[in-house]
Amino acid sequence: MTQSSSTGGQEIDTLITLLSRLPGFGGRSARRAVLAMIQKREHLLEPLTQAITRVNDTVRLCEACYNISTQPLCQICCNDQRKNSVICVVETVTDLWALERTQSFYGHYHVLGGLLSALDGVRPEDLHLDELVKRVKDNGVTEVVLAITGTLDGRATAHYIADMLEDFDVCVTSLAQGVPIGGELDFLDEGTITTALQSRKSLA
Amino acid sequence: MTQSSSTGGQEIDTLITLLSRLPGFGGRSARRAVLAMIQKREHLLEPLTQAITRVNDTVRLCEACYNISTQPLCQICCNDQRKNSVICVVETVTDLWALERTQSFYGHYHVLGGLLSALDGVRPEDLHLDELVKRVKDNGVTEVVLAITGTLDGRATAHYIADMLEDFDVCVTSLAQGVPIGGELDFLDEGTITTALQSRKSLA
Repeated sequence: MTQSSSTGGQEIDTLITLLSRLPGFGGRSARRAVLAMIQKREHLLEPLTQAITRVNDTVRLCEACYNISTQPLCQICCNDQRKNSVICVVETVTDLWALERTQSFYGHYHVLGGLLSALDGVRPEDLHLDELVKRVKDNGVTEVVLAITGTLDGRATAHYIADMLEDFDVCVTSLAQGVPIGGELDFLDEGTITTALQSRKSLA
Repeated sequence: MTQSSSTGGQEIDTLITLLSRLPGFGGRSARRAVLAMIQKREHLLEPLTQAITRVNDTVRLCEACYNISTQPLCQICCNDQRKNSVICVVETVTDLWALERTQSFYGHYHVLGGLLSALDGVRPEDLHLDELVKRVKDNGVTEVVLAITGTLDGRATAHYIADMLEDFDVCVTSLAQGVPIGGELDFLDEGTITTALQSRKSLA
């Protein structure tokens, strides 16, 4: 008998084991969560089952910006109110969500899906870089904001993008100082991110 | 836009909102969990969807002991290796799981579903008490172990059960001292629970 055993049956044990693999979850918290679901069946288990099934059926990457979406184009790309001329480049979807929570950016996004890294063997063709160039070329983009962390890989990626976009009539900016070196956007408060956005500066 | 908004679509927002209602989860951890699910789609999202659907379809209460089960009778009640003559009475399924993890009890269980409480208006007919008496009467039970917390309500319930079983040829015992007053079984280490089980004493 393992620690995850619930005595309730194979199905329940499987659910507990899977839940305990989520970030922030361990064996005990997974057991508590499953028990809470079952005890509040109508208010938790049934809606959760429907919600996760619907996400599993519909989730995909946005065809334009690689944000997570349940439609071919994500809510941001579909939004007519947003500026088509500004694209904010981020490493991951978490960073995009963090920027969105500040409610201070009204352009579009482009999720790279990682950073260039000699150490981890991430090459330009592994990221959505060509797609970024294509968007800049086709959509009349006037500014590309690089919201990428200040780590070594982040700076290398930022300079690579700036070089790639040199031949286009586009202003490449980066988030202002105020973002801590090596800090992750997801762990910053809205105020700091807003300030860094507002005082973004041109990259050489 | 609320804090839970993921920009990914209504379906993802709904899943995040529901997950954040689980014990130990907040908005940020729910977002991280959903993102992890989606990013590890084959290893997390798909198996989780199947597991939660199967639990939602099959979960019920065991007809004998009121443990959570996916069958009419739970794994413990179906187990031929366990002693039919000893029943351990617990308040909740969490307590049953905590006792099972000690691997030191080989009898059966009976989940009351609560404790008698004048304050909360919980009366004997609200708990699975008559079913306990029926099991003692029909199944040749020789010992009933009361694994109930030492709070006021817990002691009242223990005495009520001892009174109910007075006319039967059954020994009513309670967990030994070692269980802290007001302490919940789910938060105790296995060693303490094992000791308390082994040195259980007759109730008057």
